Amino acid sequence: MKIKIIYLFAIVLLLSAISIAQQPSPTPVLYSQKTLQELKHLQNHALTSDYAYKQTAYLCNNIGPRLTGSPQAERAVQYVAEEMRKLGFEVRLQKLTVPHWVRGEEKGELIEFEGMAQGTTQKVVLTTLGGSIATDANGLIAEVVVVNNYDELKALGEAKVKGKIVLYNVKFDKQLANLNQAGAAYGQVTAYRGNGAIEAAKLGAVGVLVRSAGGSQNRVAHTGGMRYADGVTKIPAASVTYEDAEMMAYLAKMGKVKIKLTLTPKSYPDTTSYNVLADLKGSEKPDEIVVVGGHLDSWDLGTGALDDAVGVAMAMQTLYSIKELKLKPKRTIRLVAFMNEENGFVGANTYAAEADASKHFAAIEGDLGASHPIGFIFAGNKDAVPFLTPLASILNTQGAGQISQQASASSDISTLTAKGVPSFGPWFDTTTYFNYHHTEADTLDKVNPKELGENSAVMVVLAYGLANLEQNLPR
Amino acid sequence: MKIKIIYLFAIVLLLSAISIAQQPSPTPVLYSQKTLQELKHLQNHALTSDYAYKQTAYLCNNIGPRLTGSPQAERAVQYVAEEMRKLGFEVRLQKLTVPHWVRGEEKGELIEFEGMAQGTTQKVVLTTLGGSIATDANGLIAEVVVVNNYDELKALGEAKVKGKIVLYNVKFDKQLANLNQAGAAYGQVTAYRGNGAIEAAKLGAVGVLVRSAGGSQNRVAHTGGMRYADGVTKIPAASVTYEDAEMMAYLAKMGKVKIKLTLTPKSYPDTTSYNVLADLKGSEKPDEIVVVGGHLDSWDLGTGALDDAVGVAMAMQTLYSIKELKLKPKRTIRLVAFMNEENGFVGANTYAAEADASKHFAAIEGDLGASHPIGFIFAGNKDAVPFLTPLASILNTQGAGQISQQASASSDISTLTAKGVPSFGPWFDTTTYFNYHHTEADTLDKVNPKELGENSAVMVVLAYGLANLEQNLPR
Repeated sequence: MKIKIIYLFAIVLLLSAISIAQQPSPTPVLYSQKTLQELKHLQNHALTSDYAYKQTAYLCNNIGPRLTGSPQAERAVQYVAEEMRKLGFEVRLQKLTVPHWVRGEEKGELIEFEGMAQGTTQKVVLTTLGGSIATDANGLIAEVVVVNNYDELKALGEAKVKGKIVLYNVKFDKQLANLNQAGAAYGQVTAYRGNGAIEAAKLGAVGVLVRSAGGSQNRVAHTGGMRYADGVTKIPAASVTYEDAEMMAYLAKMGKVKIKLTLTPKSYPDTTSYNVLADLKGSEKPDEIVVVGGHLDSWDLGTGALDDAVGVAMAMQTLYSIKELKLKPKRTIRLVAFMNEENGFVGANTYAAEADASKHFAAIEGDLGASHPIGFIFAGNKDAVPFLTPLASILNTQGAGQISQQASASSDISTLTAKGVPSFGPWFDTTTYFNYHHTEADTLDKVNPKELGENSAVMVVLAYGLANLEQNLPR
Repeated sequence: MKIKIIYLFAIVLLLSAISIAQQPSPTPVLYSQKTLQELKHLQNHALTSDYAYKQTAYLCNNIGPRLTGSPQAERAVQYVAEEMRKLGFEVRLQKLTVPHWVRGEEKGELIEFEGMAQGTTQKVVLTTLGGSIATDANGLIAEVVVVNNYDELKALGEAKVKGKIVLYNVKFDKQLANLNQAGAAYGQVTAYRGNGAIEAAKLGAVGVLVRSAGGSQNRVAHTGGMRYADGVTKIPAASVTYEDAEMMAYLAKMGKVKIKLTLTPKSYPDTTSYNVLADLKGSEKPDEIVVVGGHLDSWDLGTGALDDAVGVAMAMQTLYSIKELKLKPKRTIRLVAFMNEENGFVGANTYAAEADASKHFAAIEGDLGASHPIGFIFAGNKDAVPFLTPLASILNTQGAGQISQQASASSDISTLTAKGVPSFGPWFDTTTYFNYHHTEADTLDKVNPKELGENSAVMVVLAYGLANLEQNLPR
C-alpha cells in the first residue's frame, strides 16, 4: 500500500459485548436474528479455513512479484478470475491502461572517500525508485551532498547542489511507529521519496538518493513510487538502506564522497491490464454493492505477501466462506482485486470513475498486512457508528471489537470514500508492517496463517453484515 | 567469528561483591591495593572513552570489508600498526601465507516450478559460501532436491540425488538462541554449511544450497566457510535466505523445481598477510605476556563491525587507556590483531605455533559482538577462579561480574587455550548476534558505543589485572 493520508487520528471506541439488537427497545432492527447467527458461523469458518492462506501462498510463491505490466501481474489476474469462476461467481475483467516500468540493474559504490584503500570501493546497497529514469549505462559519477530535510537543501542552494547527487537522510521515526502511527512515520519519509527528485533537480542536482522508509535494520532497501514535474529536469532516483545512509553521512563529514550510481530501469509504453471483479449476487437488492478487495499488483523486490496478496486473499476468503456455508446476502458482495495500486493507481481511479457511488453501499479493503486485528477502521459519517456496533460485538469475541474512525480506510477504496461510500478495513498494530513492506523481505513467511484467518473473519463479518443490514447507513 | 566449540556448557558463578583481597586473611595477596585502584580508573576510562568506537568506525566505514587477501585487509593491517606505533608501542607484523578467495557474482533464479507464469522466473536470494568453486559462467541448471538433514539425504541415495542440487533446509533454532545458546544453534546449521558439499557430492549432486545460519528474517543471506575433501568431487555451494529456503521447500512439495545458479568466485594463489602485534612492555616481567586481541579480517558482505572490528577496537582501547593513564603493567600486554580468522585460521595457527605458551600468562579476545557484557568467559583450570574473583568484583559494578567457565573462550585464542594458556573473553547475551553476523547487515550502526565501552572495560580490567597479578595462575 501507499499511504496518502498523513495523519490518522484514531478515535477508538471501546465496545460492550452486548449486542444492541438483542435488547428489547423501540430502535429499528439493524440485523435480523438470522443474520446475526449467520455472521457467527461465517466468522468461525473464516477463522478456521486455510483457503486465504493457500491463495496468498499461490500468489507469492507460484506466481511471484506482480508489478503492473509484468507477466506475473497478468497471470495473477487470470488466476483470481479463474478461481472465482470455479466457485460460480460472476466474473468481469475491468480493462485498464497502465504504466509499464521495469527495474533493470541497480548498483551503487563509493569510489572516493576519506581513507579509502587503493583499488577498492565501498558498496552502497540501494534500489531504484519506481518510475525513475536510468543513469548512463556506464554509471553516473558525482559527489554526494547529504541533507536532513528540504530546508537544509535550500540553504545549500544551487552553488553547492549543482552537479551533485543529493542524499535525503530522513529517518523513519520508530518511536512514532511504536505508538501504532507507522503510517505517519512513513509519510514523513515518503514526502522526500515522492518529491525529492523534483526539489533537488530545481537546484541542479544530477541524481537523488533517499534513505529507506520503514524500520528494517537489515540492510534492506525499500522501494516505492516517485514523481517528476513538468518543466523540471528528470534525474535518476534510488533508495539506499538505513545502514548505507548512515555510512555516507559519516563519510561526508570527513571529506568528499563520490558515488558511482548505475540504474538501468526502463519505461515501456502503457499497456493493458485489469481489475478483477467477481460478484456474489444479492438476493433482495442485487444492484446495491458491498465491495471487498485488495490489490493484486505488488512491488517487484519481494513477492508482495503483506502488500497485498493477503488483502486479495481475505476478499477471496469472504466470498468462499459465504459460498461454503450456502448463504445468500441480500445485497451483492463484489470482490475487486485492484491492479496498479503501487505505481499509478489506475485500477482504483478507473473503478471509482466507472462506479455509481450511490449504488455502492460500502467498501472494505485490507492493505496493511495481516497482523492480529484489534478491530476495524471506519471512514464515513459518524452517525453510522451505531449501525456498526452489532458487528463490532461479534468481532469482539475474537479480540477485534474496536472501531477506529479515520479519514480514509484503505488505499484503493479511498476513491470510493471520496465519493461518499462508507469505507472499512481491518485495524491492527502496524508496528512491524513497514519493516517488510516494499522490500525483498515481503514474502510468504511473514504471514501468520492464524492471523490472516482473523483478518478474513473481520472482512466477512463486515461484508455479510452490511450486505444484510436492514437499514441504510447514514453517509 | 566461527564457532568451533559446538556445545558450550556455561558454568556461571555468581559472585559476591566483596573483594577477597580486602579481607584480612592468611591468603596470599593477589592484587596490590595500588593495582585495584588503577583497575577502577582504567574501567572508568574505558567506559567513557570514544576511542574504541572511533576505531571501529574507521575500520568499517573508511576501510570497509576486510576479507583476507583483499586490499582492505592489507590497509587494515597498516592502519592498526600505524595507530599503535603512534601511541608508542612496539609493533611487529607477523608474516602469514593466507588464502585469497574473491566472491565474484552470485545469482539464483528458479526457472521451472508449479504455476510459473510464462517468461518469468522466481528470484532466489543467495550468497556464495567462502571457498566455493564457481559454476559455469552461464550458470548451472539443475533440479532442486530438498532435505532436512543428512539422514534424509542418505535415504534418497544416489538414484535421487545424482545430477541434482541439494538444498539443506536446516532451521536455525531461535528458541535455543533465545536461551543464550546461540552458538549451539549456529553449530547445528554450520554442520551442513561446512560438510554439506562433501556429503552431497558423494551421492553425485552437482551443487549444494544451505539455508542461512542465523536468525535474520529480512531475506538476508548468511555467508561463511565450507570445506571440500580429497577424493570427493568439488561442487559449488551457496547459502540461501530463510525466506528462499521456505519458498523452495513449498514449491518442491508441488512438483519439479529447477534452479539456475550462477556463482563466479575465484581462488587465487596464496598470498602474504600479517597478524599485527603491538607490545606494551611489562615493567617487572616483560617476557610474560597477556594477549588482548580480536580479528582484523572479516567476511566481505557487510563491513565486519560486530565480527570483528569491535574485538580489535577493544584491544586497541585496552592499550590506549593504559597509556592515557600513564600506567605500567608488570607483565607485557600484547595486542594481537589476528588475520584470516574467517576462512583459513592461518593467523591464529601461526601465532600459536610460534608462541612460547609457557610465557603466555593469559589471552583475552572479543569475538562475539559488543552487546552489554554480563561478565567474562574463562577457559582454563577451575582452580584459577578464586584468582579472578577480585577482577569480577570490580566488573560487577558495571553489571559484568559473572564468570562463565567454558571449554573455549574465543576463536583465535583457542589455539593458545589448547596449549594451556588461561583464556578469556567478554560474556554477554548473544541472542541477536547471529541476526547480523556474516551478512550484509554487519555494519557500524549495529554497534552501540556505550556497550562497546563496557566491553573495552571488561578487557582492560582483565588485561591489566592479570598483568599485575601477584601470583601465578593455576593452569
